Amino acid sequence: MPSPIQTFLDRHNLDGFLFVGDSICDADIFYLSHFLAGDRFAFLAQEKSTLLVSSMEIGRADKESIADRILSTSQYRIKEKLKICENSEEAYGRVLTDLLRDCGIKHLGVPYRFPAGLYQHLIKDFAVTVMESPASLARVAKTQEELLAIEKAQRACERAMAQAICLIDSCKIQRDWLYSDSQPLTSEKVRSAIEISLLEDGCESLDTIVAGGPQAADPHARGNGPLAANSPIVIDIFPRNKSSRYFADMTRTVLKGEAPLDVQEIYEAVCLAQAEGLRAIRAGVSGKEVHSRVSEVFRDQGFPETEGRGFTHSTGHGVGLDVHEKPSLSDAGEILPENCVVTVEPGLYYPDIGGVRMEDMVVVKKDGCKNLTLFEKKLVI
Amino acid sequence: MPSPIQTFLDRHNLDGFLFVGDSICDADIFYLSHFLAGDRFAFLAQEKSTLLVSSMEIGRADKESIADRILSTSQYRIKEKLKICENSEEAYGRVLTDLLRDCGIKHLGVPYRFPAGLYQHLIKDFAVTVMESPASLARVAKTQEELLAIEKAQRACERAMAQAICLIDSCKIQRDWLYSDSQPLTSEKVRSAIEISLLEDGCESLDTIVAGGPQAADPHARGNGPLAANSPIVIDIFPRNKSSRYFADMTRTVLKGEAPLDVQEIYEAVCLAQAEGLRAIRAGVSGKEVHSRVSEVFRDQGFPETEGRGFTHSTGHGVGLDVHEKPSLSDAGEILPENCVVTVEPGLYYPDIGGVRMEDMVVVKKDGCKNLTLFEKKLVI
Repeated sequence: MPSPIQTFLDRHNLDGFLFVGDSICDADIFYLSHFLAGDRFAFLAQEKSTLLVSSMEIGRADKESIADRILSTSQYRIKEKLKICENSEEAYGRVLTDLLRDCGIKHLGVPYRFPAGLYQHLIKDFAVTVMESPASLARVAKTQEELLAIEKAQRACERAMAQAICLIDSCKIQRDWLYSDSQPLTSEKVRSAIEISLLEDGCESLDTIVAGGPQAADPHARGNGPLAANSPIVIDIFPRNKSSRYFADMTRTVLKGEAPLDVQEIYEAVCLAQAEGLRAIRAGVSGKEVHSRVSEVFRDQGFPETEGRGFTHSTGHGVGLDVHEKPSLSDAGEILPENCVVTVEPGLYYPDIGGVRMEDMVVVKKDGCKNLTLFEKKLVI
Repeated sequence: MPSPIQTFLDRHNLDGFLFVGDSICDADIFYLSHFLAGDRFAFLAQEKSTLLVSSMEIGRADKESIADRILSTSQYRIKEKLKICENSEEAYGRVLTDLLRDCGIKHLGVPYRFPAGLYQHLIKDFAVTVMESPASLARVAKTQEELLAIEKAQRACERAMAQAICLIDSCKIQRDWLYSDSQPLTSEKVRSAIEISLLEDGCESLDTIVAGGPQAADPHARGNGPLAANSPIVIDIFPRNKSSRYFADMTRTVLKGEAPLDVQEIYEAVCLAQAEGLRAIRAGVSGKEVHSRVSEVFRDQGFPETEGRGFTHSTGHGVGLDVHEKPSLSDAGEILPENCVVTVEPGLYYPDIGGVRMEDMVVVKKDGCKNLTLFEKKLVI
């Protein structure tokens, strides 16, 4: 039986599919090669895959990569090419040309994000089709191993969330502001507690949102400065396990003190919308349909979607080697396949009140979904 | 007087230069926009610059970006385009086309790494030239503000190095292995001490090398497992300040116990080579020349460069918003301009002995260089 990649190549009449990039930023390349590097390298997907790295990376590539064959740019005389070429892009393009010829390529596929400079170089000698990457498609439905990696990151995420909420809960309230050990509690301090917890769990977090008051009304604001009592604090944590490279993603909104009536109403509306989103999910349903059901709950409860106020974003997104990946739960949401992992994260945002968001992460199943998030939902602490 | 970007556009007969990507991975885009986002967005460089983000990012972009004008994909009807287009790349391409038309673009420049899928879309309506990014060129020589940011990251780097070496120094030696609190000291434990120190200093480190014994002979191996006494341990730390986004980079090699004669010889050769590299650097000299002088010192001392053994890598690289950026100190090394920041990091690697690398980071000056690295160099601790 031909491999999935061979089937893909046959279907599109391609001799190979070439990726060039660094695998820290390009998850497709990591997915296919299992080789993590911050400097760009090439991966040629054929029945037998080829990894092309600098001679300095050969040792590590041999140990870590799952490519069938590992070659170095020295073997393709990169140094000599650098001497005769106008610039390093040109030299690297010639190395790729030689590699592709050796691999019997005539018709080549490259992904949408393939570098335009190298694309221009390669079309001189090959028939090149720019298309959706087969890895992007393959990555949507997760294997059991991938699901375990995501769950592990989620457990770390929950331990970090517990630290954050414990810190907020331990505060004293003075004149409507939160104080920890007689110092104002800031977004920065809560974020630091989260990051140290994640580090101890082998995770990195390039960004964590701890936003209170008016800042919480901007769903992408990271948050800074002192945190107020009696006002919702949005905590959105999306750690990546350093070893597996898989992400998790969770948001909770908490409030220390007394919740004003309008905040309570918003919180309840968000809970209802999330419950409806979770109910709507199953394999074969589209992300668009789920988003539409969530939006309807908000409208029904008197929270219509308007530009800049209310439910201003999509319902969710896929999670895996990227924190935002396919499928999306939005107006453009694709059909959800079994075993994809998506977030369900409705929120409401009003500059005069603040923001409330609630985010769980689930695995899509035939008859519904399995919620990977075990953390409690509770506004007032 | 026209701005540097207008001068660049005029020289190449361009109406604008377009970047599309996420600014976490693409430092050029961060450099120009000062807007940090993990999801891709567009930046059009003209006399007045334009940032195009999703409507959800408008609030943050208004606060954080230095673009002259901020527009949203909603204004260009992304939702409607998503409904009528085959895929989201096509819809996004149409948004860009509308934006470029509104900005009076006929002849457009894009960088080498511009996504090939969007390039194919844009050449239908515009004359598009793929070329070296003006931001990549501008980023080489640093401003005073950038130098201060790099120095700040370097101080954090040095505090983390001190923690690591202090931990190794505090160890007891039992049967040629290092023990801390009666437990074997591992690469992982040293790395963890480094990472916590960096976190406390507001830095992130996606990778830190702590490699001993045979692992140190592979210059890119991260290192894992117990660390041996009487054997060199390579510690390479390259943190990024989370707020400024600038990197620093430093390597030290230390040994707890007694240094074998061959290790001492290698260490001294590396020190001599580094001193020669530092002496060779000044504005106007090429990185190639510096590398050649360093290689010569190794050859003169009986450590010739051979594939896989000895001095297997280049002498150094630029440091800034990327940890590896131009100029390089290598066979392909460009002319070093004043105020660029480069590393000088010769090393020797022998599978049977281990590895030794020594890395300082310097600012290139008219008559030499200023070493930003204040950390001591000492093999045996």
